[in-house]
Amino acid sequence: MPFFPASLENLIDRFASLPGVGRKSAQRLAFHVLSLPESEALAFANAITEAKRSVRCCRICQNLTEGEICPICASDRRDKSLICVVSEPRDVLSIERGHEYNGTYHVLHGALSPMNHVGPDDLKIKELLVRVAEEEVEEVIMATNPDTEGEATAMYLSRLLKPFNIRVTRLAYGIPVGSNLEFADDATLTRALEGRTEM
Amino acid sequence: MPFFPASLENLIDRFASLPGVGRKSAQRLAFHVLSLPESEALAFANAITEAKRSVRCCRICQNLTEGEICPICASDRRDKSLICVVSEPRDVLSIERGHEYNGTYHVLHGALSPMNHVGPDDLKIKELLVRVAEEEVEEVIMATNPDTEGEATAMYLSRLLKPFNIRVTRLAYGIPVGSNLEFADDATLTRALEGRTEM
Repeated sequence: MPFFPASLENLIDRFASLPGVGRKSAQRLAFHVLSLPESEALAFANAITEAKRSVRCCRICQNLTEGEICPICASDRRDKSLICVVSEPRDVLSIERGHEYNGTYHVLHGALSPMNHVGPDDLKIKELLVRVAEEEVEEVIMATNPDTEGEATAMYLSRLLKPFNIRVTRLAYGIPVGSNLEFADDATLTRALEGRTEM
Repeated sequence: MPFFPASLENLIDRFASLPGVGRKSAQRLAFHVLSLPESEALAFANAITEAKRSVRCCRICQNLTEGEICPICASDRRDKSLICVVSEPRDVLSIERGHEYNGTYHVLHGALSPMNHVGPDDLKIKELLVRVAEEEVEEVIMATNPDTEGEATAMYLSRLLKPFNIRVTRLAYGIPVGSNLEFADDATLTRALEGRTEM
């Protein structure tokens, strides 16, 4: 017999299936949910159902939204000629936090990764090409992660975008602001030297 | 405006309210749930509702169970004269894993902690006293955690149990099997010396 009651085992299994949650943590989370007042536990269950039901991808930029078009694409104060391509919805949040960028986004929902069987068709690439073809886009900024997969995705996209004759740029590499040279890795330092600018 | 759609923010809030889950992890978990197929996400929500609905405390030992009485208390192969007192349901699992203990349990659902406003009335202590008073109990083993709160709880209970004239024991302290003396802390080593046994 399984040790915990079946419905509790089931809840533990569900938590354990989440990324980064091991068996022990899943137990802890399940016990916590059981210890909540009935109304709180039901609110948790409803939050899942509700989010799953009402959150979808913006028809234009593929970012998560509740309407058909996300607030950024719907805003007339954003520069529609500029598209910043990111891997995940959370990356949009990171860039928005800077309060500097005033263009739009395009969320790929992943990065090319042959190892994990993620190919071009698994990403929102077609949707990007349609935007570039149909809208008046002047520049596409590749803001995929600075790792192998993000790099490969940026390279792949920049080749696809070549025929459209627009500017395709990549986020600058270099030493992080406020950090210490001592802790910069070789690759970053090399890129920072290569990309040095006039003072 | 909040950055993510309201229902997604709500789901992130729910995950962030779980113990040990920070804002970033909560985001990651919420995104993962959104990326699940509809049926999987609904199954997650149902797992919460179902576990909350059907899991309750065993009438006798207070361990989590789906029926009125848990399988251990219901089994006639367990020694009912022996009660092992633990803080949490997961501690029962830890002891059962050893396949050595053949008595029953009593789950307190916490430990005394004045700092966190957990007093005797917040634990399943009355239920333990009723068992000791009404059943033929010969020994109560204190298996609360070897920390300040677990220690205080064990001391408190042993005083309450004194009038019943039964054996009250505590798990042995000492060096963990398979470990290395070099890494044993002073307190543990002192206790291991005090508790030394004839070979």
